[in-house]
Amino acid sequence: MKIESNVNVAIIGSTGYTGYELVKILAHHPNVNIKYLSSRSNAGEKYVNIYPQLKNILPDITCIEADIDKISNEVDVVFLALPHGVSSSKIDKDILEKTKVIDLSADFRLKNLNIYEKWYCKHNSPALLKEAVYGLAEIYRNDIKIAKLVANAGCYTTCSILTLYPLVKNDLIDTNTIIIDAKSGVSGAGRSVSFGSMFCEVNENTKAYKISSHRHTPEIEQELSVVENKDIKVQFTPHLVPMNKGILATCYAKLKSGITEKDIKNAYKEQYENEFFVRLLDEGIFPETKYVKDTNFIDINTKIDERTGNIIAVGAIDNLIKGASGQAVQNMNIMFGFNEKSGLI
Amino acid sequence: MKIESNVNVAIIGSTGYTGYELVKILAHHPNVNIKYLSSRSNAGEKYVNIYPQLKNILPDITCIEADIDKISNEVDVVFLALPHGVSSSKIDKDILEKTKVIDLSADFRLKNLNIYEKWYCKHNSPALLKEAVYGLAEIYRNDIKIAKLVANAGCYTTCSILTLYPLVKNDLIDTNTIIIDAKSGVSGAGRSVSFGSMFCEVNENTKAYKISSHRHTPEIEQELSVVENKDIKVQFTPHLVPMNKGILATCYAKLKSGITEKDIKNAYKEQYENEFFVRLLDEGIFPETKYVKDTNFIDINTKIDERTGNIIAVGAIDNLIKGASGQAVQNMNIMFGFNEKSGLI
Amino acid sequence: MKIESNVNVAIIGSTGYTGYELVKILAHHPNVNIKYLSSRSNAGEKYVNIYPQLKNILPDITCIEADIDKISNEVDVVFLALPHGVSSSKIDKDILEKTKVIDLSADFRLKNLNIYEKWYCKHNSPALLKEAVYGLAEIYRNDIKIAKLVANAGCYTTCSILTLYPLVKNDLIDTNTIIIDAKSGVSGAGRSVSFGSMFCEVNENTKAYKISSHRHTPEIEQELSVVENKDIKVQFTPHLVPMNKGILATCYAKLKSGITEKDIKNAYKEQYENEFFVRLLDEGIFPETKYVKDTNFIDINTKIDERTGNIIAVGAIDNLIKGASGQAVQNMNIMFGFNEKSGLI
Amino acid sequence: MKIESNVNVAIIGSTGYTGYELVKILAHHPNVNIKYLSSRSNAGEKYVNIYPQLKNILPDITCIEADIDKISNEVDVVFLALPHGVSSSKIDKDILEKTKVIDLSADFRLKNLNIYEKWYCKHNSPALLKEAVYGLAEIYRNDIKIAKLVANAGCYTTCSILTLYPLVKNDLIDTNTIIIDAKSGVSGAGRSVSFGSMFCEVNENTKAYKISSHRHTPEIEQELSVVENKDIKVQFTPHLVPMNKGILATCYAKLKSGITEKDIKNAYKEQYENEFFVRLLDEGIFPETKYVKDTNFIDINTKIDERTGNIIAVGAIDNLIKGASGQAVQNMNIMFGFNEKSGLI
Repeated sequence: MKIESNVNVAIIGSTGYTGYELVKILAHHPNVNIKYLSSRSNAGEKYVNIYPQLKNILPDITCIEADIDKISNEVDVVFLALPHGVSSSKIDKDILEKTKVIDLSADFRLKNLNIYEKWYCKHNSPALLKEAVYGLAEIYRNDIKIAKLVANAGCYTTCSILTLYPLVKNDLIDTNTIIIDAKSGVSGAGRSVSFGSMFCEVNENTKAYKISSHRHTPEIEQELSVVENKDIKVQFTPHLVPMNKGILATCYAKLKSGITEKDIKNAYKEQYENEFFVRLLDEGIFPETKYVKDTNFIDINTKIDERTGNIIAVGAIDNLIKGASGQAVQNMNIMFGFNEKSGLI
Repeated sequence: MKIESNVNVAIIGSTGYTGYELVKILAHHPNVNIKYLSSRSNAGEKYVNIYPQLKNILPDITCIEADIDKISNEVDVVFLALPHGVSSSKIDKDILEKTKVIDLSADFRLKNLNIYEKWYCKHNSPALLKEAVYGLAEIYRNDIKIAKLVANAGCYTTCSILTLYPLVKNDLIDTNTIIIDAKSGVSGAGRSVSFGSMFCEVNENTKAYKISSHRHTPEIEQELSVVENKDIKVQFTPHLVPMNKGILATCYAKLKSGITEKDIKNAYKEQYENEFFVRLLDEGIFPETKYVKDTNFIDINTKIDERTGNIIAVGAIDNLIKGASGQAVQNMNIMFGFNEKSGLI
Repeated sequence: MKIESNVNVAIIGSTGYTGYELVKILAHHPNVNIKYLSSRSNAGEKYVNIYPQLKNILPDITCIEADIDKISNEVDVVFLALPHGVSSSKIDKDILEKTKVIDLSADFRLKNLNIYEKWYCKHNSPALLKEAVYGLAEIYRNDIKIAKLVANAGCYTTCSILTLYPLVKNDLIDTNTIIIDAKSGVSGAGRSVSFGSMFCEVNENTKAYKISSHRHTPEIEQELSVVENKDIKVQFTPHLVPMNKGILATCYAKLKSGITEKDIKNAYKEQYENEFFVRLLDEGIFPETKYVKDTNFIDINTKIDERTGNIIAVGAIDNLIKGASGQAVQNMNIMFGFNEKSGLI
Repeated sequence: MKIESNVNVAIIGSTGYTGYELVKILAHHPNVNIKYLSSRSNAGEKYVNIYPQLKNILPDITCIEADIDKISNEVDVVFLALPHGVSSSKIDKDILEKTKVIDLSADFRLKNLNIYEKWYCKHNSPALLKEAVYGLAEIYRNDIKIAKLVANAGCYTTCSILTLYPLVKNDLIDTNTIIIDAKSGVSGAGRSVSFGSMFCEVNENTKAYKISSHRHTPEIEQELSVVENKDIKVQFTPHLVPMNKGILATCYAKLKSGITEKDIKNAYKEQYENEFFVRLLDEGIFPETKYVKDTNFIDINTKIDERTGNIIAVGAIDNLIKGASGQAVQNMNIMFGFNEKSGLI
């Protein structure tokens, strides 16, 4: 029997909340050797003094400010946990010849350059867009297996797409009526200090933000449109609620005529019955963010309202795990032929 | 100049969260003399030992278990802060001859007995239904002035109705597409111990509940249907978020063809420009529950999404004040000819 | 009957959390006309767009960057809600000739310049130190009446001093054994963005900070030493707990030999029985921060542990009200001969 | 090489918060087969429908109401996660002949029957007291190895004892001056519904409770007295802070004359340098409950205050892990010769 060999990894942007969750998962991963932890703001500091949480768990690693070009010779995979616009300036074809890259930013998620530049900013390596595979394992697993560059799916998007996918794919709803009302914990805003993330601003408060203008909108639309092969628009409204982690997406649409509860259940079952990380909850049990906290699961359930003719589909994830770092590791597991669950349960 | 005389009040169910807020407001009200605080579970206890918050503020009052029939001879108004089904068993025509009643339960809100009994339980005094005025001052002020029995509007309903009212009244939206996604703090569930209100169950969690089956649905529908004189159905989904107080209602509907931003702004302005407790926020400032916390205000703003043709209207209230006790006092002020703001600012 | 005349006030540093609470209280104060709201960071903005909470309550005031020298001609009292070190650079004898000043910073609280400069920084107007009256009404009311410059007492200090005062004054404890273990909400750290005040850093966390080195230590020691006329040292440890507002101080000391429960109760009663804002709770009811939230009260209770010979004295305040802005208004009321409770209940 | 064989376990009281954490840890433990999950209140329900968190992780187990006498024939170890007074009524010498027992209640922690009955209630199996080993691995590892009945240490007590142990053992402090001011999250109060654990009662609040009368006091005293071989009394004050999990113990004592920083550091290092689950933090880094959340670690650091002559020692644990279920598994690992970390990292 051949022993599975370990991979060497580097994490660029390792001290943000996403970076921390990634380091934590990888520190427990049986097939991973963490070779570099890069951080511009914390270069020179011991990682466990920034996150004492990992003392005695993580080896004694000091953060560096990494030269990706150089370290790409030494590691099997580079995780980029950087802001959008920055990730795409850090990699090029040469690097992808030498190492695999899993990018947790939005830079390579949108296939259409114009749409990216409309919602984000100028793109720094448009030539790589066609190389990138959208990193949502439940839909693109086969492509991810052979990808060099994976564009890890976003948090709101992962939750919204997986929750709505069977409805759209099986033509069960009127796609002109999709409304996604999403609620997120504060870690989604990242670890950089900002007024809007201050405790006293968030605690005892709930608000909608970026109404009709949040950047995850075109990403959701791209993936749902691929399914139905037409141009779907969704109404996406994110909200900030006072908790650290978690996203709940409450999705609404008009059911097509004649669709029954059984059609719905079948569609979800068929799509997800072999997906370990998708849990279709039992009847009457609806997703709550605490059920998925600190896990790579997405929980889903649906309800038809006969009075209104709507279906309500609810999904929940941990925004930092299935919505970011856990999914990144799931993608890595697929790319390297590891057990897809390794490090994640 | 005639000096405005004080009123004597009794509060039945005074130790719940709604009761407490009511006592607190009335203790500061310049025209009110709190005569009786009734509580079945705390009879015999000093009120300030149950709520030390009010020590030195509230006079030294001991809770009694009140006989409403008897005390209706001695007070000008009785506030009922009791569970639904109980309120309607406590009053009758004789009592209403002797005192005014403001009922904070749902018992007299629905005009249609069948709808009440379908969503709630058997009604104990259906004959009084036609006496009752729906206690939402911004819409029924003139009726409230002369009412003997006011059915104080519910929390989710106050927020949803006032947020959507100008859109429906002015025929600006397709009323078949109304979706109300509401988020509430935990006090909405009351002060009775229940597993679902335990700190560890609620904290770091968000969930939808009673999807398509919450009892405030028919109340919202009744009031919006009155406006448009047809049978409106709404999709109402309440959510529980980890905060003590506050409701945020994010409302969605398809705009009718040709409706502009200006039409929308005019409709809201026309409806509410003389309403002190309705604050239409400036452009770009959207309601947050903290803005209305501990106040009787409802904050509202709207946005049109040209991409989807939807309007998103957001409203926020303090569920225990404008959604319950503050509104009850506002109604009392109207019924007795006091300044409508008395005790509330 | 002579009508009490109103005072014109200016608030310098009006957009911090302390400033906001002060504006909110003064907006409701019957004898106050808010003339200037100064803010360096928000000059030119409408105050109610910074704090929509106050829309419809506060008149339409735009923040300016005030020249204190100039406005001191136009107002009766200036509130300084500025960082320590800044307050003392803003005022001088000339200004105090023209207007009264209530300083909410620490700059004029410590009588001993050396101690100030050891714990804080270089002092910018040491000559004014002897002018300043320590702004703790329950102890220095008579001095405050005639003061031109009041050094409003600090938050931890107000809570600690008032909780321990009767024990020290009446020689009931061994003053070498005083330990003050204090817990504070996050607003104590102010509204400036800082990593340590981020929601995800504070939520689901409790920590001690500045152990044996917090700047409120010498302020507590100064005031307790005055009482006993000797050099008292206290062990003061602040903690950060995940809530917006509130301070709970759990104070420990060895009882002197022979001291009884009755001695203790008498000491507190004698000291505070005429103090409206000090509430000595009934036996068995101990202070909780929620009891005093949004009020100017301090709640106190004590317990003797016969097993150990210690007394445990617990006090609670709202750090932004009795610990800052409420106390500042209480001081203003005293300075201008208003009812001491005006604006505060 | 001999393969380590698996153990069969039963958990009695498996649906409380402690029970849940235990089930979760054991579900991931490589050497454990969960054979029975017992719950009186949830008998007949699928465990994952009570805790959807464990869907896809835990095998499909239905709760039963277990007969311990019977199942003791079939399992290698029984965990009792029951209220005090109940645990001791469930076991006897016969059961201990057949299976090992790890009791998470307080019933077998106190060696002195009188003290137990004074602080708790009548004891149901006093004869077993001398069989029981106090389940704090860092101190009693060798006894635990051969124990049949382990009395798993309490939450406040684990944190307090381990934090103070080196100071007492090495005679570095005046043991008449020990004060333990502890802050706990709400899960410490358990999963039974109670008014004091309601979200709105706990959120935005901090309070002390059971001042001088908490039952963990004699447990701390017993263990610290064993060390120094004299009768130590401690002043222990628990506080409730609004978070789900975590205990922070801030401990104070007068240093003995001549003791230096170096003496202190040496004492802790000597005691704990081989203890994986005790982390002595680097200079200037003090314990925060979030550092240990969801782990079996205790973090400790100390500071000497030269001004007062006190030492402040701060410890932090996750009350449900190192303070209950994690420690129980650590004890199980020791009893069965597994790697002490198995299932815990």
